Amino acid sequence: MTDHPRTPILDRVHVPADMKGLSDAQLRRLADEVRAETIATVSKTGGHLGAGLGVVEITVALHAVFDAPRDKIIWDVSHQCYPHKILTGRRDRMRTLRMKDGLSGFTKRSESVYDPFGAAHSSTSISAALGFVAARDLGGDAGDAIAVIGDGALSAGMAYEAMNNAGHLGKRLIVILNDNEMSIAPPTGAMSSYLSRLYAEAPFQELKAVAKGAVSFLPPPFREGAKRAKDLLKHMTVGGTLFEELGFSYVGPIDGHDMDQLLAVLRTVKERATGPILIHAITKKGKGFAPAEASADRGHARGKFDMVTGEQQKAQSNAPSYTTVFADTLINLATKDDKIVAVTAAMPDGTGLDRFMARFASRTFDVGIAEQHAVTFCAGLAAGGMKPFCALYSTFLQRGYDQVVHDVAIQRLPVRFAIDRAGLVGADGATHAGSFDVAFLANLPGMVVMAAADEGELVRMVATAAAHDSGPIAFRFPRGEGVGVEMPVDPQPLEIGKGRMIREGKGVAILSFGTRLSEVLVAAEALGARGITPTIADARFAKPLDRDMILKLAADHDALITIEEGAVGGFGSHVAQLLADEGAFDHGLRFRSMVLPDTFIDQSSPADMYAMAGLNAADIEAMVLKVMGVETLKVRA
Amino acid sequence: MTDHPRTPILDRVHVPADMKGLSDAQLRRLADEVRAETIATVSKTGGHLGAGLGVVEITVALHAVFDAPRDKIIWDVSHQCYPHKILTGRRDRMRTLRMKDGLSGFTKRSESVYDPFGAAHSSTSISAALGFVAARDLGGDAGDAIAVIGDGALSAGMAYEAMNNAGHLGKRLIVILNDNEMSIAPPTGAMSSYLSRLYAEAPFQELKAVAKGAVSFLPPPFREGAKRAKDLLKHMTVGGTLFEELGFSYVGPIDGHDMDQLLAVLRTVKERATGPILIHAITKKGKGFAPAEASADRGHARGKFDMVTGEQQKAQSNAPSYTTVFADTLINLATKDDKIVAVTAAMPDGTGLDRFMARFASRTFDVGIAEQHAVTFCAGLAAGGMKPFCALYSTFLQRGYDQVVHDVAIQRLPVRFAIDRAGLVGADGATHAGSFDVAFLANLPGMVVMAAADEGELVRMVATAAAHDSGPIAFRFPRGEGVGVEMPVDPQPLEIGKGRMIREGKGVAILSFGTRLSEVLVAAEALGARGITPTIADARFAKPLDRDMILKLAADHDALITIEEGAVGGFGSHVAQLLADEGAFDHGLRFRSMVLPDTFIDQSSPADMYAMAGLNAADIEAMVLKVMGVETLKVRA
Repeated sequence: MTDHPRTPILDRVHVPADMKGLSDAQLRRLADEVRAETIATVSKTGGHLGAGLGVVEITVALHAVFDAPRDKIIWDVSHQCYPHKILTGRRDRMRTLRMKDGLSGFTKRSESVYDPFGAAHSSTSISAALGFVAARDLGGDAGDAIAVIGDGALSAGMAYEAMNNAGHLGKRLIVILNDNEMSIAPPTGAMSSYLSRLYAEAPFQELKAVAKGAVSFLPPPFREGAKRAKDLLKHMTVGGTLFEELGFSYVGPIDGHDMDQLLAVLRTVKERATGPILIHAITKKGKGFAPAEASADRGHARGKFDMVTGEQQKAQSNAPSYTTVFADTLINLATKDDKIVAVTAAMPDGTGLDRFMARFASRTFDVGIAEQHAVTFCAGLAAGGMKPFCALYSTFLQRGYDQVVHDVAIQRLPVRFAIDRAGLVGADGATHAGSFDVAFLANLPGMVVMAAADEGELVRMVATAAAHDSGPIAFRFPRGEGVGVEMPVDPQPLEIGKGRMIREGKGVAILSFGTRLSEVLVAAEALGARGITPTIADARFAKPLDRDMILKLAADHDALITIEEGAVGGFGSHVAQLLADEGAFDHGLRFRSMVLPDTFIDQSSPADMYAMAGLNAADIEAMVLKVMGVETLKVRA
Repeated sequence: MTDHPRTPILDRVHVPADMKGLSDAQLRRLADEVRAETIATVSKTGGHLGAGLGVVEITVALHAVFDAPRDKIIWDVSHQCYPHKILTGRRDRMRTLRMKDGLSGFTKRSESVYDPFGAAHSSTSISAALGFVAARDLGGDAGDAIAVIGDGALSAGMAYEAMNNAGHLGKRLIVILNDNEMSIAPPTGAMSSYLSRLYAEAPFQELKAVAKGAVSFLPPPFREGAKRAKDLLKHMTVGGTLFEELGFSYVGPIDGHDMDQLLAVLRTVKERATGPILIHAITKKGKGFAPAEASADRGHARGKFDMVTGEQQKAQSNAPSYTTVFADTLINLATKDDKIVAVTAAMPDGTGLDRFMARFASRTFDVGIAEQHAVTFCAGLAAGGMKPFCALYSTFLQRGYDQVVHDVAIQRLPVRFAIDRAGLVGADGATHAGSFDVAFLANLPGMVVMAAADEGELVRMVATAAAHDSGPIAFRFPRGEGVGVEMPVDPQPLEIGKGRMIREGKGVAILSFGTRLSEVLVAAEALGARGITPTIADARFAKPLDRDMILKLAADHDALITIEEGAVGGFGSHVAQLLADEGAFDHGLRFRSMVLPDTFIDQSSPADMYAMAGLNAADIEAMVLKVMGVETLKVRA
């Protein structure tokens, strides 16, 4: 393969309308070209490879049969949207994927009219599509709405809620179930087994004939009418009772890589569907790129890679990732405490729990993409005497928020929340930022909220969480590698609600919560060169606050600056509340709170994102100088 | 009926163990006595009547067959828990139900060992029960876990997530589906139709024989073995494929008021179940109390009532409820703007949308107990060109939080959130308090957050939300009646981010957000008598803040006090952030922020709850005096 594969048909397709004159044979070749282009692109940019390769034919068939942007194609999660982007006017920018100022790795309304609804979190597509069709039927935007959703995403309750509502409303709505028996990890759950059974019972050969025959062999008079269409669709199915019970017509399973089947079924559906219909397409994640097909995750996400061997370029790293440190520490603790159990919501790899699972299979629960259930399941485990660690990304914990409030906090159950990807996360952009967890957790009565300043602190906090059995406790840590500190050998639990002094200085105190501490230390170095020696403290806890330490910092300094990797309403706000309650402002404390800005920050490197957020060393230095009234040159370019 | 019905058997049952010697005939009579006691109790206390009456037989049968507290009986939502409370050592306190220092209206771990898992929000019970059985199988607490869940609660994705996981794990777990074809309103959705079909296809007469025969007619040798048990249970069913596809054994439908059937089925299940099993019991909400059975909501919630006629005592009220004002205003606006649509998550009555629905049936969507879907469905409606009002209680909006962040805020879609029951709510207690919405919404970029100071302001805010089409907007308002202000006839949209001055004073400024304004005015009256005249302002917006007004208040006064009906992290925190950013603290501004305290507040009257929270007029007065350094007598008893 060359960097730029030969793509004669694709070269003439700039927008989906350009596909309208193509023959079925040309559409088949177009699919091959889109696949080659996708591989070539991701080999240069890195990104989500496997999902896109699995839906190349579905993407081409959808755009050939339907009329985007009038018809709304909604990609669930949208890891699989690269072929769609290639076909919708963004091919020339594909090599900026997931980069600063480049294309998003996900669908995005602000990026293209062909992205009617952005996504990045799972299982939202059917709800959104139903919104479009309900709007359409009330005189809003015309056109069909088509949700393309993976089998893994069906483990989420939200998808079920949407189907339950769609089946009730009975409006024309098209759902394509892209069943590759993989989400990021292999999906677990009864629904997944059910889909496998449907597939096992339905040989494609027969269906192919059915699908092809459906359109061509019926005489025209019989093609009319809703009832006829329903009967016709029924003959294209060999199972799917569960979906039918929920009010959907079910078609499938069909071969999601067979363009003839796809085109025949989609054309029939477009012509005849009257109510909600689910098309069950079997696909192969990573299809058509051997190194992806052969890998355990089917090429889910990749760094830049060699197009022939699939070998990835690896960044050198000296320090372990926070995720690894969390998992290793939990494994160590679990060898000594058989009450420790771990729960993940379909992210065993991302949370490091795959390694915990390898060691303690019966004590690890992958509940599917089901954060609401994950949290309350943990509450039940805790009520039953276990010590559950609920390992979620900050952004996904938002999906289980009410369960944290209602089932965990109000009942004071000792669920341990291990919150990964806290703060800004880089290439995944705004949808995956962990910006709000401190704010939405720290105001819950009885909750303990910690943030690790470095990977050694994370070890101590995992130990603290394991030991804390009187109520819920959360610890947050960022994406990426630690800073290379020495690791505690026999970590002891921290005293709840006690921070630590890092360095005594004078004039101004900087109180850090989380990993911005390393930037604070860099800033202090630069300030030291100007003869300014700030006091530096690590709060460790946003809740309960170290009142004594904070009030002493306020009393002993002219200025107090808090810094955190979160939005307003979190750590700094709790400090401000304490200072106000105690009258610490009354005599002129120069208080500042450095938080994430009031914008959603698009993808870039994490360091760039923190620069945009104004939370890097240079920003801290500038803040100290400003609050001390020191006239300065502009400290940043 | 007398106030105290004759209950000779119940009088001997103090805890479930006392039921062990009773014959089936005595258990039948016990059920009748429990029903009479429940009616007598609620006639005095008010509360959730219909749900409890519907599960009297199920409750008695469960406690007769299983061994609580070793076996964990988990009541979903737990509106239906009164008979359970009567049978589990709390009969003598039933007349304190939902009162200050009395019994909770819900199950509550801290209240009784017979409440292994508290509930109040819907659809958590299967997750919790699965947690208990997973803990049990790892050496935690022994015993069975039994979730009793209504058909309405099955519309929530969380219940599906839990079944999906339970079916996969295959552990012994018992779910009783209490199918009364009612939740608070009649349930909508495809699942509800499915359950109705199961019921329609299954005459009880035959089943009764099967259920009775199941135990008695099988010779002992055949009773052993898991496979045998499975086969046996299969013969007790006439449908339920959907549940079977999810990995559950299905038994039913059975008559949930027939003690013989219930006892036979539960005994068989207890003896033989090996994996997850769902028992589908048909019940009648309000069963056995004619006025409840005859009412539209089947006696869902009642004030104190006459035991013969069912007639309720009504409190006199002069001002309309906030809920009514919201609904009336929305109806008025919708007559002039056909893009306005309304979405409720199974609460048409509670949100006032029943009246909107009566007027605009096709523009009202009751999506079931499905807040995640409700929010993203609204996002889809907005993307399709409509103006959706998503009407939820504050506490239930927590269930759709990620969807607010990911689908609405990041995409800046103009979804209007009408947040009812904001602040403390009275008899429903901590689980229903709307304490956190300002904190978890106001830090979302692009979100507009308002709180109504009175019912006239609410009218203006509904109009403001209707007119605001450039992004998401939320307005919150409390439970209960307004204060009786004159209502705007032709309400004009408010200027976004502008507060209003209520009264110019000096020395101290009080900046109110929401309905505490009336208490501020009472406090100001008392302060006036002492010659203190605080400035009073109504912020109207927590986001965007009225920066000019707030900075002017800070500049012109020695002290600034914010007050709101929410937890720290919300309005006061945003004001503090602004003041810090602008250096307003640097010269000694006496800033205080009055927020809900860091505790979950148990049920009481709303006024009492606000007194406990320290947010009533007397507390405001005391705060002003304290911040001004005025030596005072103790202002509160």
